[in-house]
Amino acid sequence: MGEIGELAGRLREFAAVREWEHYHTPKNLVMALAGEVGELVAEFQWLTAEEAAAVMDDPEAARRVRAEIGDVVNYLVRLADVLGIDLLEAAEAKLADSERRYDPARYRGTYRKAPPLE
Amino acid sequence: MGEIGELAGRLREFAAVREWEHYHTPKNLVMALAGEVGELVAEFQWLTAEEAAAVMDDPEAARRVRAEIGDVVNYLVRLADVLGIDLLEAAEAKLADSERRYDPARYRGTYRKAPPLE
Amino acid sequence: MGEIGELAGRLREFAAVREWEHYHTPKNLVMALAGEVGELVAEFQWLTAEEAAAVMDDPEAARRVRAEIGDVVNYLVRLADVLGIDLLEAAEAKLADSERRYDPARYRGTYRKAPPLE
Amino acid sequence: MGEIGELAGRLREFAAVREWEHYHTPKNLVMALAGEVGELVAEFQWLTAEEAAAVMDDPEAARRVRAEIGDVVNYLVRLADVLGIDLLEAAEAKLADSERRYDPARYRGTYRKAPPLE
Repeated sequence: MGEIGELAGRLREFAAVREWEHYHTPKNLVMALAGEVGELVAEFQWLTAEEAAAVMDDPEAARRVRAEIGDVVNYLVRLADVLGIDLLEAAEAKLADSERRYDPARYRGTYRKAPPLE
Repeated sequence: MGEIGELAGRLREFAAVREWEHYHTPKNLVMALAGEVGELVAEFQWLTAEEAAAVMDDPEAARRVRAEIGDVVNYLVRLADVLGIDLLEAAEAKLADSERRYDPARYRGTYRKAPPLE
Repeated sequence: MGEIGELAGRLREFAAVREWEHYHTPKNLVMALAGEVGELVAEFQWLTAEEAAAVMDDPEAARRVRAEIGDVVNYLVRLADVLGIDLLEAAEAKLADSERRYDPARYRGTYRKAPPLE
Repeated sequence: MGEIGELAGRLREFAAVREWEHYHTPKNLVMALAGEVGELVAEFQWLTAEEAAAVMDDPEAARRVRAEIGDVVNYLVRLADVLGIDLLEAAEAKLADSERRYDPARYRGTYRKAPPLE
């Protein structure tokens, strides 16, 4: 079992031991994920591009960013587990799509939205 | 190297080949993550709790949810890579905190926010 | 001047007096809006549909929801002011589009995404 | 009745005519709001601070930003209507709090989080 599968197992156990499974519906977990991403966004909202690029040099900010990212990962892994989705497979499939949609020669240096794959 | 490290490497390469690194600042990637989570939320917004729980039984909805989750994973892994954060370590540290904060005997069956750890 | 224009003026003054205009760039305000919406979502994430429908009956939850909605309004009004967008005009234009896209006879009782207007 | 009250009335009618009230629960509307804010964030995610500040000079981008903001306003007004919250009152109450929390002499030029009001 991979490292994500192990984390999913620990989160499943965490919920089971506390009898919290009834909270962990797909709809609720999607909302929890959105809430945690909102907290992560808030860590960056008043930083200039330069300050944001150096955020990990400030131990206190780095600690908060790491904690918010940890929350995001945990809800995302839990959501995928409840839905029966393999996170890595889903990510790799989308990356493969993007590799096909965005021809390097054509999009080099400048992003613009490519038409969807047929 | 673990499975997330491999995905991070592929995403790094994807950006490098297209000379898109200048887009992938922490601030921009946090926003991209928020945008993708918004699309994932939108997949669930009009579903009842029951419909949301069965969303993966509908092949077309399942395909969309899987694709949105793939996008979320990719931006999250890319963001963590740019920040130099180990996603799994961050997640496990937060889970360990929650295991300490939420004593099973005390919180069994009912969630309420625990005081922060000292 | 309408009630939104008055609020926009008070927010402009609030920022000016504190010399915070340099924080209030469109990019930063969009992020602040996303962060506040994340906090609002978090108020509802563990509630059942029934509990969410009755949230305003609980004085403490009602106070929090009202406060989060107030934050969302303030950042939205400030963002529109900085961008020079008339919030009400923008909202009414989109509502008029939806009135045309969603023919009542055809969509009665059941939502599904209509094709975009030509 | 103010301008927001009128918009709330039109949105109420829009839902009633299509018999969509059952979709417009607080939980669903909060999610719809988060989804629309995600689309608004996406309009800004790859722009530099300078490009974002000039976004309204590009007619096509301006049209998209205006449309996304219109969607955000409509879901926010509809949510507040369903919850029985006066948007302006909520916003003004929070602004008054911030005026008290952030003493101009102390916070001039530099934001940092003030302690909550007692």
